[in-house]
Amino acid sequence: MHPAPFCRFLRLIGLLALPTLLHAAERPAPPRPNIVMIVADDHGLDALGCYGNPVIKTPHLDALAADGTRFTHAFCTTASCSPSRSVILSGQQNHRNGMYGLQHDDHHFQSFDSVKGLPVLLGEAGYRTARIGKFHVAPESAYTFQTVLSGGAANDPATIGRSPVAMAERTREFLESKDARPFFLYFASDDPHRANAVLPSGKPTFDTYPEPNSFGNRPAGYPGIDPVRYRPADVRVPTYLPDTPACRAELAEYYQAVSRLDQGVGRLIALLKAAGRYEDTLILYLSDNGAAFPGAKTTLYDPGMRLPLIVRVPGRQHPGAVQSAMVTWADLTPTLLDVAGATVDRTRFDGRSFRAALDGAEVKDWDTVFASHSFHEITMYYPMRVVRTRQHKLILNLAHELPYPFALDLIKSPTWISATASGGQLYGRRSIEKFLHRPRLELYDLERDPDEINNLADSPAHAAVQANLLTRLKDFQTATKAPWFHYWSYR
Amino acid sequence: MHPAPFCRFLRLIGLLALPTLLHAAERPAPPRPNIVMIVADDHGLDALGCYGNPVIKTPHLDALAADGTRFTHAFCTTASCSPSRSVILSGQQNHRNGMYGLQHDDHHFQSFDSVKGLPVLLGEAGYRTARIGKFHVAPESAYTFQTVLSGGAANDPATIGRSPVAMAERTREFLESKDARPFFLYFASDDPHRANAVLPSGKPTFDTYPEPNSFGNRPAGYPGIDPVRYRPADVRVPTYLPDTPACRAELAEYYQAVSRLDQGVGRLIALLKAAGRYEDTLILYLSDNGAAFPGAKTTLYDPGMRLPLIVRVPGRQHPGAVQSAMVTWADLTPTLLDVAGATVDRTRFDGRSFRAALDGAEVKDWDTVFASHSFHEITMYYPMRVVRTRQHKLILNLAHELPYPFALDLIKSPTWISATASGGQLYGRRSIEKFLHRPRLELYDLERDPDEINNLADSPAHAAVQANLLTRLKDFQTATKAPWFHYWSYR
Repeated sequence: MHPAPFCRFLRLIGLLALPTLLHAAERPAPPRPNIVMIVADDHGLDALGCYGNPVIKTPHLDALAADGTRFTHAFCTTASCSPSRSVILSGQQNHRNGMYGLQHDDHHFQSFDSVKGLPVLLGEAGYRTARIGKFHVAPESAYTFQTVLSGGAANDPATIGRSPVAMAERTREFLESKDARPFFLYFASDDPHRANAVLPSGKPTFDTYPEPNSFGNRPAGYPGIDPVRYRPADVRVPTYLPDTPACRAELAEYYQAVSRLDQGVGRLIALLKAAGRYEDTLILYLSDNGAAFPGAKTTLYDPGMRLPLIVRVPGRQHPGAVQSAMVTWADLTPTLLDVAGATVDRTRFDGRSFRAALDGAEVKDWDTVFASHSFHEITMYYPMRVVRTRQHKLILNLAHELPYPFALDLIKSPTWISATASGGQLYGRRSIEKFLHRPRLELYDLERDPDEINNLADSPAHAAVQANLLTRLKDFQTATKAPWFHYWSYR
Repeated sequence: MHPAPFCRFLRLIGLLALPTLLHAAERPAPPRPNIVMIVADDHGLDALGCYGNPVIKTPHLDALAADGTRFTHAFCTTASCSPSRSVILSGQQNHRNGMYGLQHDDHHFQSFDSVKGLPVLLGEAGYRTARIGKFHVAPESAYTFQTVLSGGAANDPATIGRSPVAMAERTREFLESKDARPFFLYFASDDPHRANAVLPSGKPTFDTYPEPNSFGNRPAGYPGIDPVRYRPADVRVPTYLPDTPACRAELAEYYQAVSRLDQGVGRLIALLKAAGRYEDTLILYLSDNGAAFPGAKTTLYDPGMRLPLIVRVPGRQHPGAVQSAMVTWADLTPTLLDVAGATVDRTRFDGRSFRAALDGAEVKDWDTVFASHSFHEITMYYPMRVVRTRQHKLILNLAHELPYPFALDLIKSPTWISATASGGQLYGRRSIEKFLHRPRLELYDLERDPDEINNLADSPAHAAVQANLLTRLKDFQTATKAPWFHYWSYR
């Protein structure tokens, strides 16, 4: 619960810089700020203090939100790690950039060679660029960072992505450099992803039942981390999960991994402050997709796609602002290029800049998002196309005849096993049968039914809403050159 | 019907070499023969004179068979172009080498970087290597040929792969080289694949209905080709196809494309003879998968997977031999490395050398083959695993809940459209309903039911056969590291 002494010391350095901070609101934003993008792995919206969870300890993320803008309606466009990261780093839907599924192992998906990602474009715009931690996109040429501070294979228990304070420490030299160019640091943890053992074949196994997954927590701890442990009785079980001992035990582990990552964020920000770069650096915190529990990650229900996004803009006017504009990860690359003043052909992006929303200002015409999932593992084929407004969500399940396929880490989760093995009919508020077997169209009224249980598709009262959303979804498919679009013509 | 004058001239050169040919049977095989592998695109077993079709004109292929060995039970292991070629060139099942589906355009599948293909291994063994025509595998590093005589994009109407005599002519310098090393020439036509137009988006369109697909035939013809045209009334409609005017019109076009390819083969062999290399060159003719008609290509019914294989071994003993050993395209790389005397770690291959069968000799223990299909286009997910003995075939349809998905060129085929649009219930001898909706397991007695219509899966009388085949299929999945294998554990 308590920050390590060194961490306290760094906070003190931050406090010493307070007079500078107080003047920040009066200064104009630097024309080309540094950019630090922190990307968590499977961190859902419900597991942050600043998003309303009263139990989990995320003081550094809460402080970032208090000093920046917290987005309440930010969405990934696909709830699978590699594809989502390819959207973050390309500004294109994954079905357009070619990263249809996971990059590692047998899955082997990668973006088209023609893709020119954010780090390449920022590099061309004069930024120095570095990444550390989980990469998980390919090919390297489409997403080249000038410097790789430390890489890490996906699902490798020994990756540095599990040791966020050590990660932060490795960025020190990059942050302290006297290079006059602005910088872009991509900081991607493996926390709070589920952890695995590695079988002799090289494949990961997540088979811990009945013990909870460790989420990377280990008795030996991690350098610079003061572990924050939780009692299963104390966690808040979100409505999409079953309130079972197995689930509570897993949530406690998950919380601990989130708190570990939070300390890494704290260390990184402290290093930025110590290097005198906090006041000219735009900081983003986001997650690739929802939590690694069935019902979130790999689905496009809200727990899978509605995610934390905290942005701290240098020289900002409204600390602690809350922003309700509906933005997606496809908007990140155009936004950051806009912030960087880079001249880029914007027609290549499926997203658009939400720079105007970065300071909590009310912006218009940010009320619809689109999402697209095709694969997670190569064996997990379940293409979905989604349009979501503030009130409604329409999901088109293109392969709805298949039982919903599971990610390897989710099918083995004690949360799922315990819910299904007990013979119960429900998983969270959804029936297990409906979770596994989905219709071609799902239409939900999110205002009346935030849990997305009551499917209104083909309800006569919603025919006009459905027809309108379906038209918009088809337009989206056409505009983003969706390879699955031809299905419309014969299914 | 008549060879062009230049072709006649080259044939004359061949005839002049006749005294040499007559002595060939007495000479021992050279220790390291040259290798010419001719790979046709979508050429089914029923469209060759030497395999019993009395209508189609394939005189050069028939001559090759008469001078070599004709295999009656040769099989691809996946009936889709890129994956099948990856098997041919790697000796590994496509689900092991990573080439799960098509390489080009959005599909973007490619083998793992760790794959070391036949041209690489033959190059390391001291061969000079060249390819011409359709490649369709990736990455280039896994399948590097030292020389690319002429490449060609898939589904490009202007590819040289449609002009097989021109292709042959471009190999002349390579064949005539005085380089002392043996050579490996990979000669891959686009014939007799369906042809397409290219839309402004770059995507191919096969929409010609009610006109038949041209199969690359064009009024202007091709250099060196004497077009052989067929009347729809004359073609032989195989039992898997509907005997309709639309299908007959398409078969006539298909036959013409096959006869064009045959002339390219004739020119290539004439050039080999003219260069004095016919007697030290092993020549193979095969097709990547069955004909581009629904019911063959992309299925693992016999019209999709049982294919022509003609092999002419230098210094051979039994011209016109017929070989009934059951071999697959996974066996080709180990066989050719064996022929080349290359020392290679053979555990990397899923196939094995059938060198002993190359001269028509009776060989034992070649009575079972395995096959594996996952994708064609990225949108066409339909993993199947197959074991076939002389009498039985067991097909495991892993995504059987889906309607059977169509390749883009097949869904648009007038053959299919006319069969379904007329309201008929049958396509060939199979019900359309059963073609589109398949059970998890299909078991056929090929001796009694060569059309694979009467599904014996779960028939009590065949329980022992089915259990045995299922065990062998699981063993195959384990041995070949099939990524879909984990489905067994929870489906």
